[in-house]
Amino acid sequence: MSLPRKLLAEFIGTALLLAAVVGSGIMGVTLSGGNEGLALLANAAATAGALYVLIVLLGPISGAHFNPVVTAAMRLRGELTARDALAYMAVQLSAAVAGVLLAHAMFDLPLLQPGTRVRSGTPQWLSEAVATFGLLLTIVLGMRHRPNAVPALVASYIFAAYWFTASTSFANPAVTVARALTQTFAGIRPADVAGFVAAQCAGALLALGAVRVLAAPAPAPAAPTA
Amino acid sequence: MSLPRKLLAEFIGTALLLAAVVGSGIMGVTLSGGNEGLALLANAAATAGALYVLIVLLGPISGAHFNPVVTAAMRLRGELTARDALAYMAVQLSAAVAGVLLAHAMFDLPLLQPGTRVRSGTPQWLSEAVATFGLLLTIVLGMRHRPNAVPALVASYIFAAYWFTASTSFANPAVTVARALTQTFAGIRPADVAGFVAAQCAGALLALGAVRVLAAPAPAPAAPTA
Amino acid sequence: MSLPRKLLAEFIGTALLLAAVVGSGIMGVTLSGGNEGLALLANAAATAGALYVLIVLLGPISGAHFNPVVTAAMRLRGELTARDALAYMAVQLSAAVAGVLLAHAMFDLPLLQPGTRVRSGTPQWLSEAVATFGLLLTIVLGMRHRPNAVPALVASYIFAAYWFTASTSFANPAVTVARALTQTFAGIRPADVAGFVAAQCAGALLALGAVRVLAAPAPAPAAPTA
Amino acid sequence: MSLPRKLLAEFIGTALLLAAVVGSGIMGVTLSGGNEGLALLANAAATAGALYVLIVLLGPISGAHFNPVVTAAMRLRGELTARDALAYMAVQLSAAVAGVLLAHAMFDLPLLQPGTRVRSGTPQWLSEAVATFGLLLTIVLGMRHRPNAVPALVASYIFAAYWFTASTSFANPAVTVARALTQTFAGIRPADVAGFVAAQCAGALLALGAVRVLAAPAPAPAAPTA
Repeated sequence: MSLPRKLLAEFIGTALLLAAVVGSGIMGVTLSGGNEGLALLANAAATAGALYVLIVLLGPISGAHFNPVVTAAMRLRGELTARDALAYMAVQLSAAVAGVLLAHAMFDLPLLQPGTRVRSGTPQWLSEAVATFGLLLTIVLGMRHRPNAVPALVASYIFAAYWFTASTSFANPAVTVARALTQTFAGIRPADVAGFVAAQCAGALLALGAVRVLAAPAPAPAAPTA
Repeated sequence: MSLPRKLLAEFIGTALLLAAVVGSGIMGVTLSGGNEGLALLANAAATAGALYVLIVLLGPISGAHFNPVVTAAMRLRGELTARDALAYMAVQLSAAVAGVLLAHAMFDLPLLQPGTRVRSGTPQWLSEAVATFGLLLTIVLGMRHRPNAVPALVASYIFAAYWFTASTSFANPAVTVARALTQTFAGIRPADVAGFVAAQCAGALLALGAVRVLAAPAPAPAAPTA
Repeated sequence: MSLPRKLLAEFIGTALLLAAVVGSGIMGVTLSGGNEGLALLANAAATAGALYVLIVLLGPISGAHFNPVVTAAMRLRGELTARDALAYMAVQLSAAVAGVLLAHAMFDLPLLQPGTRVRSGTPQWLSEAVATFGLLLTIVLGMRHRPNAVPALVASYIFAAYWFTASTSFANPAVTVARALTQTFAGIRPADVAGFVAAQCAGALLALGAVRVLAAPAPAPAAPTA
Repeated sequence: MSLPRKLLAEFIGTALLLAAVVGSGIMGVTLSGGNEGLALLANAAATAGALYVLIVLLGPISGAHFNPVVTAAMRLRGELTARDALAYMAVQLSAAVAGVLLAHAMFDLPLLQPGTRVRSGTPQWLSEAVATFGLLLTIVLGMRHRPNAVPALVASYIFAAYWFTASTSFANPAVTVARALTQTFAGIRPADVAGFVAAQCAGALLALGAVRVLAAPAPAPAAPTA
C-alpha cells in the first residue's frame, strides 16, 4: 500500500469513529430525557459497533490505528518509519476534528463549540492510564494470539472501558483533542486535555512493559483454555 | 440459482427486515413508556439481529441486497444484469411494503397509515448521505477484505448508524418508501421520501469513489492489525 | 451418542433455557421499577446469551433442539427415528417445566402459579406463526449455509423476534406449556396455550415449504455477499 | 510458559476483571439515577466484554482461569500440579482484592469499605450453585466441542447468568471475597461469603458429574445442528 492510500484510510476511519462517538452521545442524551445511563449505554454500544467495522475494513490498508498512541507503539515495534508515523498522527488529529464537525453538522449544532465538561484530578488520570494500558494490552497481545479477532477485541474492550473507568475511557490523544471541540455529552474542557494525554502515554508505556514480561521471545502456540 | 429463487429470497429477506424494523419500533415505544432512547436501543439491536441472520441465510441465494442502492452498486460492478437489477428493485420495494403491513397486522394496527413524522432539512440529508456512504463502504470493503464477516459487519454498522446519524440511518430507498406507510416510531412523511433517497444515492456514489481510491487493483492480502 | 445421553443433553439444555427465560424476566421486572421496555431488553439479551451457549455446548450431543417443533422438523427430514423424536419431545416438556420451577425457587416465589397473562387473538397468533416461521428458516437454512454459525444465528434471531412480534416470540410448544406455569413477566394463561401451539405449527410448516422452494437440490457453495 | 509468567497473567486478568465488575457497577448506579435495571444491564455487558477480551489475551499464557473453582477443576483433570494450583489461587485472591481497590481509586471512593449488601438464604445459595454449575459446564464442554469459542461462551454465559439467577451470579470464590470489600452495587456482606463459596463448590462438583455422564470417552466430532 502506498502512503497516501494509508493516510486516506486513517482519515476516513478516524473521522467516522469520532462522528460515531460524538453523534451517538448527542442522540443518546436527546432521546433519553436526561438519563445519562441510557445515553452512555447507547454511546458505548455505537462506538463499539463502529470500531469493529472500521478496523475490519481499514486494517488491511493502514493498520487501522486511528490513535497516535497506537501509532507510536507500532513505531516502537518497528512496524512503520518515523516519517510515516508522524504523517499518521497528523492525519489522525485532523480527521478527529473533522469527525466532530461532521457530527455537529448532522445534528444541526454550532460547528465550533469549545468543550466545557470538567475532567480532571487524580482519579480521572488514573482512569485514563488504566484505560490505555488495557487498550494497548488488547492490541498487542491480540495481534500475537488471535490477529483475526483484533477488531472484535478492541470493540469489546472499549465498550467495557467506557463503563469501568471513571473517565469513560478516551484512551486516545487525537480523540481527546477533538472532543475538546464539543460541548455535547462526549466533550472535555480544553484545559483538561494535557492531563489526559499524559496519563494515556503513561498507561501505554506500562502496557508495553507488561507485554515484554508476559510474552516469551517465541510465542507458544497453545490454545486458549479459559 | 435461478432468478425466481433469487427474487423469492429478496422478497422474504426484505419483508422480514421491514417487519423487524417497524415491529421492534412499535414494541419499543409501547413498552418504554415514552422513553425514546430505550425504544431506539431496542429498535437498533433488533434490526441488527435480523440483518445478521437474514444476510447469512439468504446471501448465498440472492446476495441478500434487500436495498436498491446495493443492487445498483452491484450492477455497476457487473455482478448482475440490468434486467435482473430492475427485477430485484421491484421485488425489494413490494416486499418492504409487505413487511410494514405485516408489522401492523401483528400489532393490531390499521394496515394503511401514511407517515406523519417530519424528516427534512440539510442535517437530515447529510445524515442519510453519511449513513449510506458508510453502508456501501462496509459492504464493498467487507466483501474484499473479509467476506464471511459481511453479515456481522452490516449488522454492527447499522446498529451504530441508527445512533450516530440524526436521521437514524434509513440508508435504503425501499425501506424509506415503505416507512412512509406507517405512523409509528419508524415512520417518515411521504413528502420527505424524495430528499432521503437523493441523499442516499449521493452517499453511495461517494463511497464507490472512495473505494476506488482506497483499493489497489490487486488487493494486498495483509492481515488486519488494528 | 446413545439415546439416554442425548436425552440428558436435551433435559439440561431445555431446563436451563427456561430458567434463563423466566428468571431474567423476573429480575428484569424487579429491577426496572415497572419499565417493561428495560425488562424485555434484559430478558431478550439473557435469553439470546443462554441460547448461544447451550446450542454450542449440547449441539454435538443431542442436536440441541430444546423445542418439539424443531424435533418434528428434524424427524420430517429423517434425522431421527419416530421413537426418538417422541422421547425428545417428552423430555423437552418435562425439562421446560423443571426450568420454570427452578427459576421460581431461585427467586423465592411459589413453585406452582398458573399463568394469568392473556395472550390471545389473531394478531398474537399471527405473531407466533411469523416467529416460528423465522426460527425454522434460521435453523434449516443456517444448517445448510453456515452450520458453525447456527448457535449465533438462533440467538440473534430470537433476540430480534422478542421485539418485532407482538407475542414476544415463544416459537416453541414446550416453552409455551411451561410458561403457563408462571405468573411472572414471561407467563401465559393456560387457556391461551393451544392457540399459540397451533400457530407455531402453522408457521413451521410454512417455513419448511419456503425452504423447499428456496433451496436447490444441490446447495450452491457461493459466498454470502450481503 | 514459566510459572511466574502464568501467575502474572492470572494477576493482570483477575485484577482487571474485578475492576470491570466493580467499576461498571459504580458507573451504572451513578448514571442511571437509581434505576438498578439499567445499572445491571451495563454491569453485565461490561463484565462480558472484559471477560471475552481477557480470556482471549491471557488464555494462551495461563489458561485464563481467574477463578479458584476453575483452577480446582483443571487440577482434578490433571492439567496443572497441586503446587501450581495453590499458587494460582493465591494470586487470584490477591489480584481480585487489588482490582476492587483499583476501581475504588478510579472512582475516588474510600479504598477500604467492608460490604453491607445482604446476600443470604436458600434461594441465593441455589442461585450460586446453578450459576457455577452452568459456568463449569460452559468451560468444560466448550473446551471439548469448540475451544476457540470459549472466550465468547464464558462471556455470553456470565451475561445471561447475571440476569437469570437471583444472586446476579458471582460464581467465583475469589470474586466473592473481593466483593466483600466494597459497599457499592456489586458488594456482598462479609458474613455471607462462606455460604456463597460453599454453594459455588457444590455447583461445580455437580457440573463435573454431569459432564462425566454427557461426554463419551471419545468425543464425537458431530457438527452442532441447533
